[in-house]
Amino acid sequence: MKNNKLAGVIKKSLLVILAASQQLSYAQNSGPARLVSYVKPLIGTGAVDKNSLSGSNFPGATVPFGFVQLSPDTQDGPDDPASGYDYNDKTIVGFSHTHLSGTGVSDLFDVLLMPTTGELKTEPGNAEQKGSGYRSAYTHGEETAGPGYYSVMLKDYGIKAELTSTVHVGMHRYTFPQNSQSHILIDLNHSLNKKRDYWACKIIGAEIRVIDQHTIEGYRIITGWAKLRKVYFHAEFSKPFDSATLVSGSSQHRDLSVINGSNLKAALNFNTTDNEQVLVKVALSPVSMENARQNLSVELPGWDFDRVSTQSSNKWETELSKIKIDGTQTQKEIFYTGLYHAFTQPNNIADVNGDYQATDLSIANAPDKAHYSTFSLWDTYRAAHPLYTLVQSEKTAAFINSMMRQYTSYGYLPIWQLWGDENYCMIGNHAIPVIVDAAFKGIKGFDVEKAYQAVKASLLTDHPGSPFSTWEKYQYIPEDIQSQSVSITLETAYDDWCVAQLAKKLNKTDDYNRFIKRSEFYRNLYNTKTGFFQAKKKDGNWLEPFNPLQYGGNGGNPYTEGNAWQYFWYVPQNVEGLIGLVGGDAAFNAKLDQFFTLEDKSAEKNGNASGFIGQYAHGNEPSHHIAYLYDYSGQPWKTQMYVSRILNTLYNNSSSGYAGNEDCGQMSAWYIFSAMGFYPVNPANGVYAIGSPVLKHAEIPVADGKTFTVDVNNPGAANPYIQSVKLNGKPYHKTYITQGDIVSGSRLEFAMGAKPNKAWGTKPEDKPPVWGY
Amino acid sequence: MKNNKLAGVIKKSLLVILAASQQLSYAQNSGPARLVSYVKPLIGTGAVDKNSLSGSNFPGATVPFGFVQLSPDTQDGPDDPASGYDYNDKTIVGFSHTHLSGTGVSDLFDVLLMPTTGELKTEPGNAEQKGSGYRSAYTHGEETAGPGYYSVMLKDYGIKAELTSTVHVGMHRYTFPQNSQSHILIDLNHSLNKKRDYWACKIIGAEIRVIDQHTIEGYRIITGWAKLRKVYFHAEFSKPFDSATLVSGSSQHRDLSVINGSNLKAALNFNTTDNEQVLVKVALSPVSMENARQNLSVELPGWDFDRVSTQSSNKWETELSKIKIDGTQTQKEIFYTGLYHAFTQPNNIADVNGDYQATDLSIANAPDKAHYSTFSLWDTYRAAHPLYTLVQSEKTAAFINSMMRQYTSYGYLPIWQLWGDENYCMIGNHAIPVIVDAAFKGIKGFDVEKAYQAVKASLLTDHPGSPFSTWEKYQYIPEDIQSQSVSITLETAYDDWCVAQLAKKLNKTDDYNRFIKRSEFYRNLYNTKTGFFQAKKKDGNWLEPFNPLQYGGNGGNPYTEGNAWQYFWYVPQNVEGLIGLVGGDAAFNAKLDQFFTLEDKSAEKNGNASGFIGQYAHGNEPSHHIAYLYDYSGQPWKTQMYVSRILNTLYNNSSSGYAGNEDCGQMSAWYIFSAMGFYPVNPANGVYAIGSPVLKHAEIPVADGKTFTVDVNNPGAANPYIQSVKLNGKPYHKTYITQGDIVSGSRLEFAMGAKPNKAWGTKPEDKPPVWGY
Repeated sequence: MKNNKLAGVIKKSLLVILAASQQLSYAQNSGPARLVSYVKPLIGTGAVDKNSLSGSNFPGATVPFGFVQLSPDTQDGPDDPASGYDYNDKTIVGFSHTHLSGTGVSDLFDVLLMPTTGELKTEPGNAEQKGSGYRSAYTHGEETAGPGYYSVMLKDYGIKAELTSTVHVGMHRYTFPQNSQSHILIDLNHSLNKKRDYWACKIIGAEIRVIDQHTIEGYRIITGWAKLRKVYFHAEFSKPFDSATLVSGSSQHRDLSVINGSNLKAALNFNTTDNEQVLVKVALSPVSMENARQNLSVELPGWDFDRVSTQSSNKWETELSKIKIDGTQTQKEIFYTGLYHAFTQPNNIADVNGDYQATDLSIANAPDKAHYSTFSLWDTYRAAHPLYTLVQSEKTAAFINSMMRQYTSYGYLPIWQLWGDENYCMIGNHAIPVIVDAAFKGIKGFDVEKAYQAVKASLLTDHPGSPFSTWEKYQYIPEDIQSQSVSITLETAYDDWCVAQLAKKLNKTDDYNRFIKRSEFYRNLYNTKTGFFQAKKKDGNWLEPFNPLQYGGNGGNPYTEGNAWQYFWYVPQNVEGLIGLVGGDAAFNAKLDQFFTLEDKSAEKNGNASGFIGQYAHGNEPSHHIAYLYDYSGQPWKTQMYVSRILNTLYNNSSSGYAGNEDCGQMSAWYIFSAMGFYPVNPANGVYAIGSPVLKHAEIPVADGKTFTVDVNNPGAANPYIQSVKLNGKPYHKTYITQGDIVSGSRLEFAMGAKPNKAWGTKPEDKPPVWGY
Repeated sequence: MKNNKLAGVIKKSLLVILAASQQLSYAQNSGPARLVSYVKPLIGTGAVDKNSLSGSNFPGATVPFGFVQLSPDTQDGPDDPASGYDYNDKTIVGFSHTHLSGTGVSDLFDVLLMPTTGELKTEPGNAEQKGSGYRSAYTHGEETAGPGYYSVMLKDYGIKAELTSTVHVGMHRYTFPQNSQSHILIDLNHSLNKKRDYWACKIIGAEIRVIDQHTIEGYRIITGWAKLRKVYFHAEFSKPFDSATLVSGSSQHRDLSVINGSNLKAALNFNTTDNEQVLVKVALSPVSMENARQNLSVELPGWDFDRVSTQSSNKWETELSKIKIDGTQTQKEIFYTGLYHAFTQPNNIADVNGDYQATDLSIANAPDKAHYSTFSLWDTYRAAHPLYTLVQSEKTAAFINSMMRQYTSYGYLPIWQLWGDENYCMIGNHAIPVIVDAAFKGIKGFDVEKAYQAVKASLLTDHPGSPFSTWEKYQYIPEDIQSQSVSITLETAYDDWCVAQLAKKLNKTDDYNRFIKRSEFYRNLYNTKTGFFQAKKKDGNWLEPFNPLQYGGNGGNPYTEGNAWQYFWYVPQNVEGLIGLVGGDAAFNAKLDQFFTLEDKSAEKNGNASGFIGQYAHGNEPSHHIAYLYDYSGQPWKTQMYVSRILNTLYNNSSSGYAGNEDCGQMSAWYIFSAMGFYPVNPANGVYAIGSPVLKHAEIPVADGKTFTVDVNNPGAANPYIQSVKLNGKPYHKTYITQGDIVSGSRLEFAMGAKPNKAWGTKPEDKPPVWGY
């Protein structure tokens, strides 16, 4: 009894700690912290000030690679950020079930739910109006986001909203105040405004049906960035609603059980007691209502929200455990949130029975019940897919088999595929390095010979942005035939090189000769007078005037989302050849120095270029390999300097933790590799250039029970420079490791310091080679 | 041997006769003429002068109720006539595989083929350009159209094109001249221009794939009047093409085997000898490429064009034989072409395996391998569906079962359904009279109790154009809530009456009372001061100003495609009640007299109003029953006069044979009934009002081996008036017959004359009753 008071204090303290830990996503649990505790889904969701950037990520609930990604939207017609959620917005309009993570173009946002209280608005506006007409203030102090769980207090209504999910089902738990007019609104018109020039969204058809007082069904058919998406939903409520109000455009209906149209909303009306919880399960299917019902019954039969949330968290824990690290709390948060973002897609868009919408928009069935999409390949071939080969090798095969289905239908592999549907966003054919890389890494589960036919056909079949008959005829892409010609020339030469390597492995000598020749066509656009890759016209003359600082966007200019400075470095298949073009290591290093220090004095930058160090723009992918290029030209300490600077200044654990769009895992994968000390400059040659590790320790379980480990002595922003390296206990001077080093379970040790060791890694034989196998 | 010369002459004569008969569609065969010989598909395909009208029919090849309807298109972006073919156009742009017959809105036109010779055009124009860029002159002298067969000489290229089809497959036979540059073009961008305000067409995705030198496959996904159509095709060529040129927008590709995009074309290139025939079979599926292949292999495995054409002709002969008539050659041509047009749709849009695109745009399977669509119900419930109940009773059940699938998905029956997809064109819910009529006629093969639930729900579920909560609240449709309010009020009252009758039959007394009350709501819009049905506002006041001659279109006015004069007569469920409203027979007859003689002095007519006799406009459906109303008010000889006049002056066997859009069989069905002497003024009460038969004889096989026959003494335009009637040999004075008279196999005999017999049919008991069972 005498300890009562103390016990009370202890209890109170524990409560404070628990509350705090909950807000930190259980970071302070006893025992070794669960890795999920480091994941902060709010990272990358909004710029902290007008000069910083968002990653365009969303904070809501998803399982790894899940179809349903249930997240709050802060705008009625979400356009920018494309995730639908901006950390700086003060209100939430509801929770929709599908999202894109880190993209530059918005789409999805299917089946928005919003709980409210009070009088229903009687004037829902005109047929074009976006949004449910309802929004609520919220604060980040009353918001929690973790793997598989999101919650927020909707202050206008006094409702706590909690979200979790399975692969196909979103689960909502709304804690209402006492109110005789509580509502859960459903908005099927929530999507990007149809007024966008490209990929304008238009709802082709929609329906909401009241099955009984516990059940709503419906669908919407929509064309947008994905040409055609059919989204069927089946929603079940834990408490019977008293009535349903169905709204089509500007007309409201009570006592109606079904409504069809293009702009549909519904309000399910309840009488709630104080703190009464109403749960909703919303299952989606891209194929049919029947499949939506089946997805629900298979995946989420009961009403135990906490169990579903725990199961989701456990799934994440399993996936995150594929890399274990030691480092600072901040590093762990950036690293595991990065891994979380990398595993947020590609998404399995097949139903539990394997049905999916095929590339030709018919309905097909996947025997392995998996069809992956959301392939932002221009971004993700660089480091995200190489990361998947290490820690998601089974899924890598499934990704490839899914991409192969597009080849079978279209005749070429995906360029940018969303919801199983090619949208021709960006340039290049970078499913090719993904597949060739997987083939050389020995990923099991796909047919290499068939895959070879696919990568070859993808480089011989003319298609939008890829005029290959022009390519072989001119041996460069003429800007007056195909815009973005310099970028396409450079990137296609790389894809050609990849196919050449696989041709060689498969003893297809003629093919090898054809593609290896094409892989050197980049030389045809090198202007020795300016020292840049420049656009030529079909008559062979340079396109004038030329300004190496001038940006292009996505058409109308020779450079894609960048300028001649940023594209100069894109010859990952032959860096030595590139160095030769400018006259050797010294000239190359001088050019790199200028690149990293030249402040842009030109006019408008491309909106995707951000995170600058001189002309280097870490916020967009064309720059991602460039800091590592000093390894190839004898000054690896400069690679170390810039990589360290990028890791320490262009990533953080705030809502503006990325220097630009996170791009479906690519921006995160750059961090994950670089923080461990190496990066795949050429994502398909089995070579990783060494940079500047910032973590204390990292370990990756590899095949046969082995573990690849990295240990770093004296890491930190103040110690960017490698003093020495050991590989498996032996001094190591090379500025690279190989895939073989990783999969054999090597131990890599770094000793870091504040001053460069200019003796390390600078001999000619220390340079990363063209081929790592 | 001596007879050789004579034999030669006879042979030559026979050849001439055969050639002539072929051009007349085998009209002169020995023995009784085949009924197909009377079918002239060119009827209704184009106005003969600028003051006449087309039926908007197409002349091409189809089997009865076929999915593929393969026909020449004379315009690149066909809009008006909606069939794609205008008899007055001098050039043909190609042959597409799907068409609408007689509608006022255009859509379909899938997979256009065009044979040409000469240099391929190297500049295919911009991405928006419609058409293959090729067209050829033709003449009607070198054009033949018959059931299941169409041919035309393409004069620009010297190519004879012949077409035939099965349900899912179009078969082309092109006879080429000698040419090293012969081509068959495929255009997947051929469709209505996307610039239309409503139901704008947009191709969501398309593909053309060269499988081998004999085979092309592809698809297009398009949104238009039908919200979403997926059209997969598999095409086989009898002769291997030497090469294929694939075109996407403005870029041409040779040596490419597959192309994807939205504006796709292909040229298959041949070297042909003189008179060389190249055949093409194109199978369509609305579900998948695999199904298109299966449709071809099941329906059309060989290459015998003539056999396919003969089989199609035989199918038509079987269907046309369901009514046998005697009359003049012209009457037979109008009559059987009308029957042909009536059987051109609804179309079975299911694949041979039963797969079809369901109303909710998922893929479903019909156990009976049939899913019918193209339900232009505002038109066809009046006489086309009543005709189907008599001569297509099995299909009537299939039509109803198909419509029921929309009810299951949408909660209400089709209004205007195309390609399985509701487009909410026109007003009313006239699947209801179709189903109620079929139920009372005892059509087997559908579940009457379920159908009752559907017709009831269709009148209680608010949906576009049908605000039923408003209906019961105001007991009329207020124009300030729902435009076209007078027309909707009148037509909904009729639908209500139909449901009331079925409720009574099924002993649902409460429902009966509810709907029979609603069926009299038309009275609430009758303005005793003007003598017209007029629009009221929700405050109960009349909408002013009122001009009974002013036309409405499809919104923005109380009247639908007509004026207050034309809509005055729409109380088919209670003509006696209507007569009472105006004060009795004399006033009613005077008003009818005025209606048929009042020349319109107002401003612009609605584009659908045509075929005028005073205010009567036979070219559009609101007028169709009006000439028969004198039967109800004691002056049947005026019905006879006007019906005779309509039959003899507003139908002919030219390309401008209809007084307006043929409307999916309705305009033809009016002729078919009226020419036999009777018409279903109320299409669901089992009563047919007697008009003025123009045929000499008609017989319809009915159940149990019985035959209903009509014999007419002294028919003809000069003898419009009934002198006397016998039913089963007994004098008959009633101005109507019943469904029972027909199905019992009665014999109806008319004696006609030049002067009215005003004693016949004028007693009160001679008037058509409200109920015929």
